[in-house]
Amino acid sequence: MDRPGEDELIARYFAPLAGPAGLGLLDDAALLSPPAGCDLVLTADAVVAGSHFFPADPPTSIGRKALGVNLSDLAAKGADPLGFLLTLALPGGWTEAWLGAFCEGLGESASAHGCPLLGGDTVSTSGPLAISITALGAVPPGRMVRRTTARAGDLICVTGTIGDAALGLALSRPERPGWAGGLSAAQRDALVDRYRHPRPRTALAAALREGARAAMDVSDGLTGDLAKMLRAGDVGGVLDLDRVPLSEPARAAMAASDVLDLLVTGGDDYELLMAVPPERLPALAAAAARLGIPLATVGEVRAETGLRQLRGGFAHTAAPRSFSHF
Amino acid sequence: MDRPGEDELIARYFAPLAGPAGLGLLDDAALLSPPAGCDLVLTADAVVAGSHFFPADPPTSIGRKALGVNLSDLAAKGADPLGFLLTLALPGGWTEAWLGAFCEGLGESASAHGCPLLGGDTVSTSGPLAISITALGAVPPGRMVRRTTARAGDLICVTGTIGDAALGLALSRPERPGWAGGLSAAQRDALVDRYRHPRPRTALAAALREGARAAMDVSDGLTGDLAKMLRAGDVGGVLDLDRVPLSEPARAAMAASDVLDLLVTGGDDYELLMAVPPERLPALAAAAARLGIPLATVGEVRAETGLRQLRGGFAHTAAPRSFSHF
Repeated sequence: MDRPGEDELIARYFAPLAGPAGLGLLDDAALLSPPAGCDLVLTADAVVAGSHFFPADPPTSIGRKALGVNLSDLAAKGADPLGFLLTLALPGGWTEAWLGAFCEGLGESASAHGCPLLGGDTVSTSGPLAISITALGAVPPGRMVRRTTARAGDLICVTGTIGDAALGLALSRPERPGWAGGLSAAQRDALVDRYRHPRPRTALAAALREGARAAMDVSDGLTGDLAKMLRAGDVGGVLDLDRVPLSEPARAAMAASDVLDLLVTGGDDYELLMAVPPERLPALAAAAARLGIPLATVGEVRAETGLRQLRGGFAHTAAPRSFSHF
Repeated sequence: MDRPGEDELIARYFAPLAGPAGLGLLDDAALLSPPAGCDLVLTADAVVAGSHFFPADPPTSIGRKALGVNLSDLAAKGADPLGFLLTLALPGGWTEAWLGAFCEGLGESASAHGCPLLGGDTVSTSGPLAISITALGAVPPGRMVRRTTARAGDLICVTGTIGDAALGLALSRPERPGWAGGLSAAQRDALVDRYRHPRPRTALAAALREGARAAMDVSDGLTGDLAKMLRAGDVGGVLDLDRVPLSEPARAAMAASDVLDLLVTGGDDYELLMAVPPERLPALAAAAARLGIPLATVGEVRAETGLRQLRGGFAHTAAPRSFSHF
């Protein structure tokens, strides 16, 4: 196959995504002057074909997801994106059409969130396609929102709706789930779209810095991630499952079959999970409303360790589980 | 196999390598306060089993190489290391013994160069082991040494010796090269060691900022990388092959067979290639000598584009070639 070499590849597909700090991707490194006095927030997440997405997913979707999962981590720390570095391990059969579409998706996500490409590396692999991204963000000094700082009395809040991506993943598999028959084609498409396309909540980062005492993103399932956040703060909490925000397609699936445990333990939500002091909730809720980002209170942090789940007013005994991409 | 999950893995193997900015690897992101007023230098390089190292190489060597190739890029930009993020794609058969040794090698390199782990991600892959690292360094404002700024009249200098790693790679392959018989076992071991273990010249970074007008590291072969640096500066130059510094084992190989083209086109040297204004050479050479780093002048930048190679006073017609890891 007649394909461009690495330098040509960089010039044709990656350089157009580069910000000024990327120096046109013509040097060995990027050069970034961070905003004066800011702290840097750094995160790295990789996605691998077969684990985090399906090899046959549209390449634009793969590009959007690879960057989106990293932007979601920045948002959860209250950080404004500065840029990202990309390592792409391409399997033997790649085509320029595939790469062009991948970069289109990556570029869409990069410009929507003000997070230009700074540099990277392209390697070939005999294994599955793998994309590793390091994203950088900035926060005012001392203002990164930690995962470890939830305190008894804080309210537990989440953005958006929970569980859509888990249903979308189930719908993407060869075996049709029982509840799928209760959904319209448009509802099924909406769920698959949620699985493929994270909607990182970067717009809420500044308000989250003001409003949340602790935060993380929901990437491995709500109950598992919440248990992790509470454990990290050496506190416990109550999660009221009846208050977990569900989309209209997710409610349709619930009407067909009780998929609640799947909704709250499946991965790939990429919503924000926060511990919010009650007195700060009104301002945070107002900021979210202005941005059109749904915000729901789903529980409360307690001093006693452990996560208790309530459903219909009774204790729900399912153990908090995490979806493992590893 | 009974192996730890991702959280346990992080606590046991990676957290001991983390610097304060890594927050014990307990959060979603690292938090770095860059030195006040400095520019950040960022580079990302991945290594893949079968392309950049042999799957059966000692895991300590793989760990050292994965970080070393990134430290070499920082050194070539005159940057002092701040830390790194790691993405590790582990194939199914990994063992804790392997991972422990890998982290030992990674940690040796990290502490030798003052470059702690800041964060990362571990994923499983059905393909070969792949390690992607993003390294961050700092330079005083405006002082990153670019690849693009060589000027006619500058001297072309390199650190260390050239071509050892290319010979080491040849010796690591199943077919024994013809010249191998002319070498002692100790000489062969020294060459394989150079292939496995980059010696990033981070110690020279500060002097390079003062002394070099343009620089890059030699990772894909001297002639190809030099041609690239000259092209990037829209200049040309002369490379005197007789002045290319060779190690004693490389000279022994030369005595057995004319391997010069292999020496100057093979990859994995991880030495520094610089364009140095003549008046700045004495101070740079003195700094290198103080650090015990050999420095050789191998040619000169000319205004006319193109790289001319001389050997024994005559034009050497081999085209500048790059070793491709891609």
